[in-house]
Amino acid sequence: MRSAFFISDGTAITAEVFGHALLSMFPMSFSQHTISFVENKEKAEEVKTKLNKAFKESGEKPIVFYTFVDEELKQIIDASDALIYNFLEHFVSPLEQALGIQAVPKTHRTHSIHENSYDHRIDAVNYALVNDDGANVNNYEHADIILVGVSRSGKTPTSLYLALQYGVKVANYPFTDDDMDELRLPPFLKAHKKKLFGLTIDAQRLIEIRGGRMANSKYSSARQCRMELREVEKLYKKERLKFLNTTHLSIEEISAKILTETGIKRHKY
Amino acid sequence: MRSAFFISDGTAITAEVFGHALLSMFPMSFSQHTISFVENKEKAEEVKTKLNKAFKESGEKPIVFYTFVDEELKQIIDASDALIYNFLEHFVSPLEQALGIQAVPKTHRTHSIHENSYDHRIDAVNYALVNDDGANVNNYEHADIILVGVSRSGKTPTSLYLALQYGVKVANYPFTDDDMDELRLPPFLKAHKKKLFGLTIDAQRLIEIRGGRMANSKYSSARQCRMELREVEKLYKKERLKFLNTTHLSIEEISAKILTETGIKRHKY
Repeated sequence: MRSAFFISDGTAITAEVFGHALLSMFPMSFSQHTISFVENKEKAEEVKTKLNKAFKESGEKPIVFYTFVDEELKQIIDASDALIYNFLEHFVSPLEQALGIQAVPKTHRTHSIHENSYDHRIDAVNYALVNDDGANVNNYEHADIILVGVSRSGKTPTSLYLALQYGVKVANYPFTDDDMDELRLPPFLKAHKKKLFGLTIDAQRLIEIRGGRMANSKYSSARQCRMELREVEKLYKKERLKFLNTTHLSIEEISAKILTETGIKRHKY
Repeated sequence: MRSAFFISDGTAITAEVFGHALLSMFPMSFSQHTISFVENKEKAEEVKTKLNKAFKESGEKPIVFYTFVDEELKQIIDASDALIYNFLEHFVSPLEQALGIQAVPKTHRTHSIHENSYDHRIDAVNYALVNDDGANVNNYEHADIILVGVSRSGKTPTSLYLALQYGVKVANYPFTDDDMDELRLPPFLKAHKKKLFGLTIDAQRLIEIRGGRMANSKYSSARQCRMELREVEKLYKKERLKFLNTTHLSIEEISAKILTETGIKRHKY
């Protein structure tokens, strides 16, 4: 299997995202390795040795995606028996020309505690945890968004993702069996109606997910799942709430769609 | 302020990460906009109109980072009054040559529910929530890592990040004031000693963080914070646990360092 390496003097997250986006276009498997915090010459030499060994053992040059700031470290890696894709470098000069200023090489530019948004994100994670699953219904004035939906429609992971990635404060509130007889918005939600965003999911998928947690229960029965979904979707329409079916969407996709539909300001790019 | 756009037929996460990495090299501010799910010609034309308007209003061409699969949509955006940085395209041909196969354009390659790792990640998020803050000490046989440390040393956000991003199952256990008289590993941690990873933090930073939550309390007092940190660090050394000082590190950096030091297999790149 062809080897691919994501290497950086920082977290290597940028190198991973970029490399992964490219490799995913090829219908083949790769043996993928991340090497982060290559911050000095010794570590760079170790990486070089590792790359050369991968070449020697397989006869194929490993694919390398990297981000480095230090020119000396970069050169050590460049001298390996590897195919190097230095994707930042290629775009720096055209951008310098377009913007009319010089790029300033600086380590830990991204994904570090020095980003303006960092404290926002930590606050947002704490907010999501304290306001998960209807735990704290009197705290919604600080929410950017309140996700509503039946149990297992994707509220909690989406709340956490929006908090961690974008610093958006998301509370979530579940509609449960007890609410279903005459489903309506409770006063603490009605008071923040503009912040509400509904999630729904196909009944078949919900039955599977709940069955994985509590097989042969009322909670996971087809009848119960269908009834709950019918009721919440009726409510969303009656109250004209924005809502989204999450069946075929990842947390990243759900989050991106919520940000698009609500126009909520994110604190990080 | 110069405008920058991150545009895609999917979540635009790849375009954001790449664009952000490049823009962060320039000592200037940008007005940043993400436009995701540009999946048809109408939407692409809307984006073109928006880009042309940004140019007309400012006299400066907006900077555009995009990932598109559909050639027709791409051409609509390419025809805007914008500076387009098509970073994937540039690397596809060299990679095709190196790998000896053709790239297969496909939407939603990354950040979608179809990634192999997706269910792993959702399971890991649920695991992190159920095993947060010592909530479930009899469940550690399923953990990949157990983070230990004093309150507010970074355990919870790190657990969630490792789960969401990499599908790694992380439990976390807090050492509290009650443990401090004779701090040692309780039996349920001792049984999984190889999975333990300690977090610590500078006393001054801990005092600040705790003070923000509970000012003028024993919990946030300098004396208490210093004592707790002294005791846990002593324990880490005595038990020869791997540990990390999180004071100057972001969640991304803490997570990357933990993955590097433990060699834990991640389920997503």
